[in-house]
Amino acid sequence: MTRETTSQRSADPASHRLTGVLAPALTPFRADLSPDARRLVRHCRWLLSQGCSGLAVFGTTSEANSLSVEEREQLLDTLLEDGIAPERLMPGTGCCAISDSVRLTLHAVRRGCAGVLMLPPFYYKAPSEEGLFRFFAQVIEDVADNRLKVYLYHIPPVAQVGFSVPLIGRLIKEFPDVVVGLKDSSGDWSNTAAILSAYPGFEVFPGSEVFLLDGLRKGAAGCISATCNVSAAAIRNVYDNWKGADADKLQSEITALRKAIQAFPMIPALKAVIAHYRQDPAWARLRPPFVDLSSSEADKVIRTLADAHGFKLDFAKAA
Amino acid sequence: MTRETTSQRSADPASHRLTGVLAPALTPFRADLSPDARRLVRHCRWLLSQGCSGLAVFGTTSEANSLSVEEREQLLDTLLEDGIAPERLMPGTGCCAISDSVRLTLHAVRRGCAGVLMLPPFYYKAPSEEGLFRFFAQVIEDVADNRLKVYLYHIPPVAQVGFSVPLIGRLIKEFPDVVVGLKDSSGDWSNTAAILSAYPGFEVFPGSEVFLLDGLRKGAAGCISATCNVSAAAIRNVYDNWKGADADKLQSEITALRKAIQAFPMIPALKAVIAHYRQDPAWARLRPPFVDLSSSEADKVIRTLADAHGFKLDFAKAA
Repeated sequence: MTRETTSQRSADPASHRLTGVLAPALTPFRADLSPDARRLVRHCRWLLSQGCSGLAVFGTTSEANSLSVEEREQLLDTLLEDGIAPERLMPGTGCCAISDSVRLTLHAVRRGCAGVLMLPPFYYKAPSEEGLFRFFAQVIEDVADNRLKVYLYHIPPVAQVGFSVPLIGRLIKEFPDVVVGLKDSSGDWSNTAAILSAYPGFEVFPGSEVFLLDGLRKGAAGCISATCNVSAAAIRNVYDNWKGADADKLQSEITALRKAIQAFPMIPALKAVIAHYRQDPAWARLRPPFVDLSSSEADKVIRTLADAHGFKLDFAKAA
Repeated sequence: MTRETTSQRSADPASHRLTGVLAPALTPFRADLSPDARRLVRHCRWLLSQGCSGLAVFGTTSEANSLSVEEREQLLDTLLEDGIAPERLMPGTGCCAISDSVRLTLHAVRRGCAGVLMLPPFYYKAPSEEGLFRFFAQVIEDVADNRLKVYLYHIPPVAQVGFSVPLIGRLIKEFPDVVVGLKDSSGDWSNTAAILSAYPGFEVFPGSEVFLLDGLRKGAAGCISATCNVSAAAIRNVYDNWKGADADKLQSEITALRKAIQAFPMIPALKAVIAHYRQDPAWARLRPPFVDLSSSEADKVIRTLADAHGFKLDFAKAA
């Protein structure tokens, strides 16, 4: 009932662009800390069954920057071989090295992925806007594929390097058919609102469902949020009913749950929750520098969410 | 005349550990922005001829984080094939992904490099000390080679993630034959002094020659500094004469030159200086997000250094 807004805004309604609720899927690891493709496929299928319209695999929550380029390529290929549709995928491909960013982006485009979510190069701090522009221009020129759709990934609390409103405008102007959207994980609603106001039709995804309803009311394309890994159904419900009478009430519930989860270390907590409800301790593993929660910390997360928010996950029926 | 201090401190005098003046060699690029191995080899030979005791290739100044893992491996292999001795090399091998750090470190150790300079994983901010400890422990265990010598790379102004004095101590205690030193690019002399005081025998390199003489007087192993790319001879002169009567005067000259250079964007300025004195404009190229200096900016750097410090480079006699 709500897709008309985003599809009306789309510059290319025939494209398979992703809108709605996207999960930056968690990446499970084996005992030797190699990526666990089998568990990842199951998780991705479950996320789609929960109402995710797409999967922003290899995001911050996915520990993607703890994965090598080859590991990301192999995981993406496994997802596709196991039947996840490329039209549902927006893999993260932005690395510090332009050669890595080109390679991952080429791989994703050739596999038919709907788009790529690109971090700016984040090692060197305070790069010039001209330097960031040249980085993206070079990647787009080297990939040289008119199927490429780039979503800029703005997450200054982690990457430190981000996209100013004028830089976004310069990239849209130079590459209007390629630079089509942005995930805003600044956590700053005024920044999201400024981008939405400045560039109508540009597909903006707040990086937290806290801003989903406010975002939709200003023309956002949906949201891409860590907590979609455990609460996609409720978030999708807001997306589907944002014009309804109870939209604010539904939003307040997902906001409260998000705030409860983010009071804990986010990625270890999400993995602990999945491990608990799947009765699969292997799910709790993380690559250093992340450290898994102690069992008492994990218990506290699970109890807090269950007691205060009636939160539970039922995997019994899951594939 | 000055090596007795460092060799007395060494836990293993028979090893080929590097002390003295190390350059984080600049990485030249071809017109298509691929790494230019031929120019890199010439630059490295010249740096050794200028008094560098070793080369910390693939450091921050080398734009190493703008290179892929394969590009670093290929450049290292070319340096070795062209006769640069592995005992002179301390390549940077620390990446965000533990799999990349293991791969690069294994490659360097198998090629016989004297040591590796390892950044901590730097994407995720404020990692726990336990998480950083586990990262290094895992790399050391996965490499599983008793030739491995790790130098920790502490550069919080860029990486944001660094090594506290207690974390350094924990790593030394757990891996006394492996974690043998640290480059301190904090720019904070009190931090360098605290590490030198806490861990006698640990090979500490200030990340700037500004702290060379103070460092040597407290037992530092030398320095590893960006500006060694253009002023290694003068820096080596301080290292060789630090007990001499004119040590403070020599130090003040290299401090003044360093401060003059660092008033400009460091990496573009160093490349502009090399390009000018080699009469080789190709040297000025950088990978985005860095941007080369305009010709008027480059002229200003060259004039400032020449006028105020009598600085020039003579490549006529160089190999």
